[in-house]
Amino acid sequence: MADNLIVIHGGGPTAVINSSLYGVIVYAKAERKIGKIYAAKNGTGGLLKEELLELTDVSDEKLELLKQTPGTAIGTSRDPLEKEDYEKMIVILEKYNIKYVLFNGGNGTMDTCGKLYETCKRLNKDISVVGIPKTMDNDLAITDHSPGFGSAARYIATSVRELCYDVESLPIHVVVVEASGRNAGWITAASALADKTGRYAPDLIYLPEIPFSEEKFLEDVKEKLKTKSGIVVVASEGLSDKEGKPIVKPIFKVGRATYFGDISSHLANLVIKELGYKARGEKPGLLGRASITLQSEVDVEEAVLVGKEAAKAVISGESGKMIALSRNNGDGYNISTTAVDIKEVMMFEKKVPENFINEAKNGVTEEFIKWCEPLVGSIGNEMVSFK
Amino acid sequence: MADNLIVIHGGGPTAVINSSLYGVIVYAKAERKIGKIYAAKNGTGGLLKEELLELTDVSDEKLELLKQTPGTAIGTSRDPLEKEDYEKMIVILEKYNIKYVLFNGGNGTMDTCGKLYETCKRLNKDISVVGIPKTMDNDLAITDHSPGFGSAARYIATSVRELCYDVESLPIHVVVVEASGRNAGWITAASALADKTGRYAPDLIYLPEIPFSEEKFLEDVKEKLKTKSGIVVVASEGLSDKEGKPIVKPIFKVGRATYFGDISSHLANLVIKELGYKARGEKPGLLGRASITLQSEVDVEEAVLVGKEAAKAVISGESGKMIALSRNNGDGYNISTTAVDIKEVMMFEKKVPENFINEAKNGVTEEFIKWCEPLVGSIGNEMVSFK
Repeated sequence: MADNLIVIHGGGPTAVINSSLYGVIVYAKAERKIGKIYAAKNGTGGLLKEELLELTDVSDEKLELLKQTPGTAIGTSRDPLEKEDYEKMIVILEKYNIKYVLFNGGNGTMDTCGKLYETCKRLNKDISVVGIPKTMDNDLAITDHSPGFGSAARYIATSVRELCYDVESLPIHVVVVEASGRNAGWITAASALADKTGRYAPDLIYLPEIPFSEEKFLEDVKEKLKTKSGIVVVASEGLSDKEGKPIVKPIFKVGRATYFGDISSHLANLVIKELGYKARGEKPGLLGRASITLQSEVDVEEAVLVGKEAAKAVISGESGKMIALSRNNGDGYNISTTAVDIKEVMMFEKKVPENFINEAKNGVTEEFIKWCEPLVGSIGNEMVSFK
Repeated sequence: MADNLIVIHGGGPTAVINSSLYGVIVYAKAERKIGKIYAAKNGTGGLLKEELLELTDVSDEKLELLKQTPGTAIGTSRDPLEKEDYEKMIVILEKYNIKYVLFNGGNGTMDTCGKLYETCKRLNKDISVVGIPKTMDNDLAITDHSPGFGSAARYIATSVRELCYDVESLPIHVVVVEASGRNAGWITAASALADKTGRYAPDLIYLPEIPFSEEKFLEDVKEKLKTKSGIVVVASEGLSDKEGKPIVKPIFKVGRATYFGDISSHLANLVIKELGYKARGEKPGLLGRASITLQSEVDVEEAVLVGKEAAKAVISGESGKMIALSRNNGDGYNISTTAVDIKEVMMFEKKVPENFINEAKNGVTEEFIKWCEPLVGSIGNEMVSFK
């Protein structure tokens, strides 16, 4: 009897998590050692409830659609797991003769992946477990970057480019755009790619890596408005002050969860109240990670690649690994994949490093732009102004 | 000496106001009667300050870029005008030998257009004034629809389609998307075009034409969540209750202006507090009117057309008119343009009519979909789900 494979999604979707699913299925279908290709319906919770989807015979036509479908076609979750859940998972995996397990997700999911690997080892089970990186926030360690980020970056950069033309059309005002990434400012930073000349790029960028000061923010805005009639500010959703307290006060609590207002409207209101300029806050939110329209081509390709490489690795018996991307030396942008120890990745958040943040702490460096550009691809088209 | 022409932008930009500018310039360049083609820099305020841009010799290459440039390439404004401003405008127009005036804008701008026309008539001036319709909100009277709306509609419908796939991926939750259009719900309604099957379209749509009840909203949400794991709500930014009071309480006042919070986060918070479900609010805001990526092709074509027709009308001596679009009888979508009296358009807001709103007042009718579809064009691509 052939052995079976399962793929499990964890955490929020990205614009290309389905592309990795495509990579996994295409590779596994061609592999004789594999009997059935399963997916957990709605993440680990689905696996624990034995809600499995069988994808072995999905047509090539449908598979191709995965690359242009947002969300995840098999469902995902953020289920908190207990020690006994891992043992229960193994019972279910054995019941379905599943020997190969792929987890596709971010930090939390890689933690689950590592723990299942350790449980299998402890119980001496012949089950291999490999992780596929995925996070729009780009905060996974070791890998140069994560699939999902390039598309989220292209979304914010293109949207901000278009917005900057709009803002230039009107009399003095300030628009604050809220970017995803509560603890790591990669997407916020990527907005700088909007325009190489800088004219149609954000005037100010605030990353969660830097303690935020409302006084300095207002000074920055005043300074920029001395030379420009309208400005665009991009701010991370997770800004906090030098004591680590969120800038936006909690608005209410339900159970253990605390709800904060939006940083975009908070900062816009601050500009109106303190400086008397017109201001607006915009928050595209989930639209950014769902945008197929603004997918990055490189991101799609790499998502497919890590899916295939993870399937290849797990079927060849590797376990306790995650497929990472690394840049090759030499001219141009070229990447390789490597299988890295999952324990090096588990629950470690990769932040934007100092050399990518400008001296004034309100923008990015040329070094960041160079690093980010190849992941994103083209940003908008040529435009014109007569002013 | 040949006579000159000027084009003036008013109000907020749309994704295609530059396409109308393209139409005006292309027509006027080819017209021997026209000497110079001017534009007011930053709207009527620029005209009153004699800040004129000369566009007579702009290259064809640059003109083509107008169709893919968001914002307005000549600038716009929302200057409040007094009676004497119109007389001052005429002095400046005469100084520059400008005999043909085109105003491109929405309700406020058509009001300005009509008043300049009346002032010219009263003072017996040989200056012709014609309006070009523009409003993403689609609230201009007489015309079947206004350039700018089709693209804003395509943006919201495509974004919501993508979002619906994302929302289906995750366990139970509610996402509220805020749509532009404070008094008229055309853009909000257009979100229904996201998916013909309804599965990946908004579950609930709330228009500003209908008095909003928070109790009924919560009932609607509970009802929808009985059969779906996650739902998408699209709400107009301008919802108010049956007494006409805005749903979102004013958060502060500066001078005569009152600032309200966002309806999206307000409704999301209501769901969390009252129903205990996870909820998020998203507000793409200005990104919708700036999106060239999601421009509607028909919208671009029609924006160019009304620009050309307005130039043609004003040069042939028509005055006190606005170019309107009307649908031809017969199969398929075909439009004609007509010059309508500007006084029929001035300051009258066109709302979404009853026959376009469903009985439960939380969605649209098939009749609306049929009316709206040809203005928007294709919405997203084919997608796939295995759940």
